[in-house]
Amino acid sequence: MSDALQKGRGVIKTLNPDLETILSERYDGIVPDMAETLIEWAYGRQYAREGVDLKTRQLCTVAALTALGGGTAPQLKINIEHAMAAGASEVEIAEVIWQMALYAGMPAAINGLNAAQEVFAA
Amino acid sequence: MSDALQKGRGVIKTLNPDLETILSERYDGIVPDMAETLIEWAYGRQYAREGVDLKTRQLCTVAALTALGGGTAPQLKINIEHAMAAGASEVEIAEVIWQMALYAGMPAAINGLNAAQEVFAA
Amino acid sequence: MSDALQKGRGVIKTLNPDLETILSERYDGIVPDMAETLIEWAYGRQYAREGVDLKTRQLCTVAALTALGGGTAPQLKINIEHAMAAGASEVEIAEVIWQMALYAGMPAAINGLNAAQEVFAA
Amino acid sequence: MSDALQKGRGVIKTLNPDLETILSERYDGIVPDMAETLIEWAYGRQYAREGVDLKTRQLCTVAALTALGGGTAPQLKINIEHAMAAGASEVEIAEVIWQMALYAGMPAAINGLNAAQEVFAA
Amino acid sequence: MSDALQKGRGVIKTLNPDLETILSERYDGIVPDMAETLIEWAYGRQYAREGVDLKTRQLCTVAALTALGGGTAPQLKINIEHAMAAGASEVEIAEVIWQMALYAGMPAAINGLNAAQEVFAA
Amino acid sequence: MSDALQKGRGVIKTLNPDLETILSERYDGIVPDMAETLIEWAYGRQYAREGVDLKTRQLCTVAALTALGGGTAPQLKINIEHAMAAGASEVEIAEVIWQMALYAGMPAAINGLNAAQEVFAA
Repeated sequence: MSDALQKGRGVIKTLNPDLETILSERYDGIVPDMAETLIEWAYGRQYAREGVDLKTRQLCTVAALTALGGGTAPQLKINIEHAMAAGASEVEIAEVIWQMALYAGMPAAINGLNAAQEVFAA
Repeated sequence: MSDALQKGRGVIKTLNPDLETILSERYDGIVPDMAETLIEWAYGRQYAREGVDLKTRQLCTVAALTALGGGTAPQLKINIEHAMAAGASEVEIAEVIWQMALYAGMPAAINGLNAAQEVFAA
Repeated sequence: MSDALQKGRGVIKTLNPDLETILSERYDGIVPDMAETLIEWAYGRQYAREGVDLKTRQLCTVAALTALGGGTAPQLKINIEHAMAAGASEVEIAEVIWQMALYAGMPAAINGLNAAQEVFAA
Repeated sequence: MSDALQKGRGVIKTLNPDLETILSERYDGIVPDMAETLIEWAYGRQYAREGVDLKTRQLCTVAALTALGGGTAPQLKINIEHAMAAGASEVEIAEVIWQMALYAGMPAAINGLNAAQEVFAA
Repeated sequence: MSDALQKGRGVIKTLNPDLETILSERYDGIVPDMAETLIEWAYGRQYAREGVDLKTRQLCTVAALTALGGGTAPQLKINIEHAMAAGASEVEIAEVIWQMALYAGMPAAINGLNAAQEVFAA
Repeated sequence: MSDALQKGRGVIKTLNPDLETILSERYDGIVPDMAETLIEWAYGRQYAREGVDLKTRQLCTVAALTALGGGTAPQLKINIEHAMAAGASEVEIAEVIWQMALYAGMPAAINGLNAAQEVFAA
């Protein structure tokens, strides 16, 4: 097990403890090692880095996935949950989503708010 | 003058005092009121909002403009400067840019780092 | 109330009289003033401008939302309705959508036609 | 009938014999000649070209539609079927989709894998 | 010569008489028939269609290319020229570009205005 | 050193032996371990996978970067070079780029051909 994989598993414990199992059951059948690769790369090599706290990282992710548009709604919802697990409030999440109207347009921001409402209601 | 325009001019004083003048000289000739509209909407109606501090808002913008890709490099550079004016360090900026490799791919993240290096060197 | 907000409410009377109420009920809870901001910015500061008639503006919006791709389908459908309220025919709408195959590819154009068919059938 | 249209009909016989009829019934009502135009342009002017075999062309299309993101899911699924009709295996398809995580980010790649799983299960 | 190619050459006579020659000299060496294919598809199969006048079609294209972002600047500039050849004024062009701030964000709109200024100044 | 990093360095030996050094000198100063992370993730965890040969993988990358648009031109050029190092001919590269006109529109395909011409001329 690489150091990065180990670190990634540590980060996931805070944000979403079942993530690796869920990914593994869903995707390793058609892409061997997909779950392990994602945990190593996304959480071990990125979120585990120093310099920016986890909550700010997750708010940036929520902003970016909103800006990238409606096709990323499933991933946006998961990252809204991760942002809340990292300490972000509903207000903070809604605010950074709405701000994206400036950079990616109204449709992207509105689709982002719709995703947030679904997560907040659940 | 609307309340939002007044608030927007207040925010700009911190981030980039000459912005309205620069925009006005450059764009009002072909789009009357462009500068005023942008300050009102972007800074009066968005950045002036409560709930998230200005530095976090600017880091989210840097992340999103990186994710949106190389065509937004001029705006990314201006917002990196605004992020620094709002208190973000070079490390924080580079980190949220690099994180975007996860959500928008390596080319977007690398183009973002290139933009940051140009701003940091200036 | 700013001049722009007042103008925006005037434009909306033609295109979609209930829009501000719908937006307010849906979004003001998580983003205070969202509806007012959208009407001011989108309809007061943009659609209310001189120089291009409302029907042409709406056809340009339909074209652009088609080009931006499937994630904007909900907003595309609303703007197809607005285009019709501004005097555009079904033929005009279908034509500018199909033309987008040139600039954004076949999938975007076909997704746009699907959205148009849903609106025309309703 | 143009040469390109004739060639396009030849290519479609291998990949998806009913495609022109399906498109014609669905779209020619609102966009006259849409089906014929698509077959001529996409299959007669592009896929019928020499220099790259049909299977490689289809794998490139699967990669690109994955990278373009979730809004193109319907077209991605059809092109996964076309890739299989051109001789690509499930492994080859899943691999080029997953590779797109590098260039378009994790959400695009995961949405692509979801589309592939739906096609493989059908 | 297909009917569509013939029609496309007719449209180009109005918009940009040298276009096929320019494309042929630049691209037919690496993509045989590229110029002919583009004229047939873009101008014979799309712009030659009935239902929407050429000026409105070109304004829709200018809007869409603006919305698609800075990477399409070269094509945006050519289509701004085509829009003017089809009868659009500088005001009309600047207005539909600026309107895109609503749907694709400020950076896309500002990059579009920059492209327009370059064309207007030439 | 993780297994993936070791494998990634093996792949890079074929495609672009100086890549890790170039990245390290350019980016490790602002993003510690950037070069190592990229080699591990992109080449060790993706290109080193079985199931699809390196040349086909690179052609898929060229197609996808073309489809993603002009902002990725620097990365597209590097991957055109990698595709040639993996055995792809100029014809194959030009063909898959041009094919992208179908899925991402003419501007993306033309920008891709421009990038290819620059690489072929060098």
